[in-house]
Formats: sequence, C-alpha cells, structure tokens
Amino acid sequence: MSLLNHLNWRYATKRMTGEKVPQEKVDYILEATRLSASSMGLQPYTILVVEDTEVRKQIQKVAYNQPQIVEASHLLIFAAWDNVTEEQVDEYMRNIATVRNIPVESLADFKNSLMGSVVSRTQEQKYEWAARQTYIALGTALAAAAEQGVDATPMEGFDPAALDELLNLKEKGLRSVTLLPLGFRHVEADFLANAKKVRRNKEQLFVKVD
Amino acid sequence: MSLLNHLNWRYATKRMTGEKVPQEKVDYILEATRLSASSMGLQPYTILVVEDTEVRKQIQKVAYNQPQIVEASHLLIFAAWDNVTEEQVDEYMRNIATVRNIPVESLADFKNSLMGSVVSRTQEQKYEWAARQTYIALGTALAAAAEQGVDATPMEGFDPAALDELLNLKEKGLRSVTLLPLGFRHVEADFLANAKKVRRNKEQLFVKVD
Repeated sequence: MSLLNHLNWRYATKRMTGEKVPQEKVDYILEATRLSASSMGLQPYTILVVEDTEVRKQIQKVAYNQPQIVEASHLLIFAAWDNVTEEQVDEYMRNIATVRNIPVESLADFKNSLMGSVVSRTQEQKYEWAARQTYIALGTALAAAAEQGVDATPMEGFDPAALDELLNLKEKGLRSVTLLPLGFRHVEADFLANAKKVRRNKEQLFVKVD
Repeated sequence: MSLLNHLNWRYATKRMTGEKVPQEKVDYILEATRLSASSMGLQPYTILVVEDTEVRKQIQKVAYNQPQIVEASHLLIFAAWDNVTEEQVDEYMRNIATVRNIPVESLADFKNSLMGSVVSRTQEQKYEWAARQTYIALGTALAAAAEQGVDATPMEGFDPAALDELLNLKEKGLRSVTLLPLGFRHVEADFLANAKKVRRNKEQLFVKVD
C-alpha cells in the first residue's frame, strides 16, 4: 500500500466508534509527527495529547459539540508558540550541537540567521509563522494515521481562545491552532463514510510555468 | 518501507545533482499533494510547476541564490489565493455536487458555513487562512517525495513580493508562500547529506493532558 492509497482511504471522519486506538499506533503517529519538517528545523510548537474522556468532554463544549472529539480515543491539539525568543533559539542550537557532536559556536551563523529572519519579527508575526509550521506537522500526522488505518479529523472548528483558557495554554506560551481526534470511523453513523472524495481537478490545481 | 523510514531518509537538501526526476514520480508527488486535506476541503491555493531552467534561474535571484532551485529538475511553488470569494465557494459547491451526483441545493448549509466562517473575514485574514492550508499540502508533498526516493527542500527563504511580480501572480489572485525544489541529493557537495537529523525530544514536543 502506497501513500496514494492511504490518502484515498482517509477522510475527515465526522463520527467514530469509540474503539480505542492501540498505543503503538498512537506512538507511531506521534513519532512521524515529530519527524516533520519545519522552517529552519525549529519546530515552534507543542502537541498536547488528550486521552482523558472528561477533559475531552470539556473541549467538545468549545468545539461546537462535534461528536468525534469524544468518540475518538485520543485527541491531539497542535499548539503554536505564541512567541519565538532568543532563549528558545539557544536551546535549539544546543540540541543541534549535542546531536551532531559539534561545538555550539560553530552554529553562530545559523543562529544569526534565525535571529534575523524570525526572532526580529513582531510577536504576532512570530505566532503566525509558528502556526503555519503546525500545519506541516498536521499533514504528516494525517498521512501517518492513514498508513496505520487510524481515522483522523483535522479540525479548525473550535474556539481557540476558550480552549487556551481551558487548558491554561497562555501561561505555557502556547496558542491552540488545530485539533486532530484519532479513532475509527463509524460507517453506519457517518454520512461521509461512503461519500466520494472531492478534490480540485489537476488541471485547475496545477499550473505549468514556462 | 514505512512512512517513518521515509521521513528519516529525507532532509532539507541544500545541493542537488541536476539529474532529472522521472515524470511518473513528479506526477505521483503532485497527485498525493492534490489529495491533501484542507479546511472545509476548499484547497484555496494553486501549485505552480516550473521545469524551465531559465525561469528557475530568474527565481533563484529572488531566493538568495540558493543552488537547489536550479540543481533540482522541477520547482513547485505553493501559492495561496489572496482572497476567498463567493464565486470560488460556488465553484467548489458545483464540484461537490457533480462528483457526488447530488443537487447543489442540498449543499446550502455547507455553503452558508463556509460563507460565515471564511468568506466573511477580511481579505488579509483569508489569505493567511489560505496560506496555512498550503502547509498541509507541503507536508503531504514532502512525504510523497520521500516515499518515491526524491529529494525535496521546503523553502520559505525567498522574496515573495518579488516572486509574485516575476510570475504575475497578483493578477492571477495568488501570493507565493513556499517553494519546493524536487531533485536528487548531491552527497559529496551537501554538508547536510550525512548529518544526523535533529528534532525536539518527544518529552518536550508532546505534553499529556489529564
């Protein structure tokens, strides 16, 4: 089975069965997400993993009561850093130096590049930049879930400010961007389960430049 | 080979060999990208495919002369719609109705939802929302390229306004967001080819909420 097969299999599941996603599949999806690309490699976000049903019921209330939040067994919350600071960049540099066994001083040019192109921006611009990066991770998580036969529903339909308050994200320097419930489709209850996938035609989506 | 293997194999390739990516692999990567998820399914972007070397040389000039733009054989440009209009939503509704063989009138609630949650925003907010969606497509393209053994470099490092002018994107209602050269790594010339992958530790990246 190729990625194309997996992408054709997946869809934004609206109703799930409640069956629990095995831990090894959750771990696989998280590991794929951890390996996602991000601009300059910074990964300026945190991914919250919610399994507790009571917490998910609270989250459902600020997400238009969408059923898949509680019918899933795990809910991922992609939360972007609300700022990017020199301290965070320094921590990243130390991580690179450790993993590659090189002196952190040898990364001075790279650090300067990050400082100039990202840290110098306004806080709102930095948050927006970080939020965009979370969508790469979301895309990777969707591909990984599909490969594992796990249904997943990318969701922007919730009140981010209310969710941030519910989970005290502000004091953690985070702002919620998207939700991703993980579970299994309820074929009988979900009107979309057997609907044909709709995508823009390739003639519209792609433009050859000569 | 699983997605995890592919993600571990890939990296942001800085130098490529110039070898041409076979058309069937390019087509595969584009088809995977076309199948990407997007909010409400709208896919509010166009992906420009540039093979012509002279055009890529012009683009390189507004992208800090980064070599992979010309050392690749194909350059994808992810360009977001600079606005989201009722006409575009109506076209989407007609597409759904055709693919699923249902009356377009049955989609009235869905259309209203898109009008209220997206079209009613300011133009800049709509562009930013569309730009975020391109990052899901970018993440899918990266996974597909890696599966096909094709190197790809996600790039924000270019002057979007200059590129938009070069390719007349404004008059097409588009704004360039990211670049993705497709090619093959030049192992000898690329200092990153054998570098260990650096990612945040899972203990930092993931937070369990109870």
